Amino acid sequence: MASGCRIGPSILNSDLAALGAECSRMLDCGADYLHLDVMDGHFVPNITFGHPVVESLRKRLGREPFFDVHMMVARPEQWVQPMAVAGANQYTFHLEATDGPGALIKDIRENGMKVSREAGGRAGPRGAAFPDRSPLRQVGLAIKPDTAVEQLAPLANQIDVALVMTVEPGFGGQKFMEDMMPKVQWLRTQFPSLDIEVDGGVGPDTIHKCAEAGANMIVSGSAIMKSADPRSVINLLRNVCSEAAQKRCLDR
Amino acid sequence: MASGCRIGPSILNSDLAALGAECSRMLDCGADYLHLDVMDGHFVPNITFGHPVVESLRKRLGREPFFDVHMMVARPEQWVQPMAVAGANQYTFHLEATDGPGALIKDIRENGMKVSREAGGRAGPRGAAFPDRSPLRQVGLAIKPDTAVEQLAPLANQIDVALVMTVEPGFGGQKFMEDMMPKVQWLRTQFPSLDIEVDGGVGPDTIHKCAEAGANMIVSGSAIMKSADPRSVINLLRNVCSEAAQKRCLDR
Repeated sequence: MASGCRIGPSILNSDLAALGAECSRMLDCGADYLHLDVMDGHFVPNITFGHPVVESLRKRLGREPFFDVHMMVARPEQWVQPMAVAGANQYTFHLEATDGPGALIKDIRENGMKVSREAGGRAGPRGAAFPDRSPLRQVGLAIKPDTAVEQLAPLANQIDVALVMTVEPGFGGQKFMEDMMPKVQWLRTQFPSLDIEVDGGVGPDTIHKCAEAGANMIVSGSAIMKSADPRSVINLLRNVCSEAAQKRCLDR
Repeated sequence: MASGCRIGPSILNSDLAALGAECSRMLDCGADYLHLDVMDGHFVPNITFGHPVVESLRKRLGREPFFDVHMMVARPEQWVQPMAVAGANQYTFHLEATDGPGALIKDIRENGMKVSREAGGRAGPRGAAFPDRSPLRQVGLAIKPDTAVEQLAPLANQIDVALVMTVEPGFGGQKFMEDMMPKVQWLRTQFPSLDIEVDGGVGPDTIHKCAEAGANMIVSGSAIMKSADPRSVINLLRNVCSEAAQKRCLDR
């Protein structure tokens, strides 16, 4: 089984002039992790922010919060080392953006170990306790709506998280693409222990579809950020997701 | 004569998790404008932020502060309209990044007018009062250290500001390149009424060189941001710059 249901607010549609405060607010409301949308204006037609912002967030928020950096960039190889140093915990890159996903996965793992060692932490297996800082320890692999899920399959055993985009990446506030759910279902069947993340248009109206299909890492932007009660939205998303996971477990 | 000496802090080395507060602090300390470093990881090996952050800053800071967006990006044509809408006042692009600087200058002017009209403001000459919002009304043209200043000359009469980089663009905290001063001097002699901006390693130790050469728009990052007394640094930079300008005026 994938390891529990986790909700990661995307701060794309938040007040970017006060990103630290916005992230704190999300963590105070029970977010399990933060999904940080990095865009370079080349892979997608928008520029959000890069590793200097991630570094500032890490300084502000301390070592505890888990940062999933979603690299919507044209040359994902370029930012592994800077992001490891900046304090990213999960490096999620797009299959469409690289010719060498295997080498990139290896590089992410090596950089995570290296930064951890340099910081005086123990280089250990994923999830091990790193006393001095929160290391880069997870690899995410993302696919855009037009990419077939079977293309991801040969790499599934090398990654921690498969991210199935449920909108075209680039902007917040878009409509959820329900026709991506068969990809999630297929992955859940093929790789029962893989973490499967969904991103784009996910909120109280669409979480059931994602949960039933088998997603367990839920990125949600506008639905959480723009709610008057983000805590309730986060709880609702997590509850729906957990119930579906339990049901799957019983059905087997 | 160029229109007065102005000091524009660069917020590149500030707390990017609290950019609105950092910019407010600079304005409270007497900054004449804000120099916003936009990097896409392609033109320079760093990603900072893009127009969504500029938009958030405009919302936070109101219509008054002047935003000079320094576009260290590979396709500057792409961001004119988004930046005009986001609230940029000066669009400073790099000569090295485009094959059609003339068309780009025209596009910047047209977008400034358009956004201003749509916002209900009067479309007018630069510097006119726009009642409803602060429009894009200035064009800056930047050159990297390796670019000869003569390449900028044919466009000098079409722009508002020439930006002479005094470090290789990409990162804050670099050492000032004094050997760029002849470029500034040459521009000041050839185009007495042009605003000339310098950016990179400028602070109390290097301002005299810039001021004597003829620069009147002073970007300063670390020297202001990391000072315990940013107001004094800003005043010092402005005073040195103004005195040199007055001296030039008397010498003529």
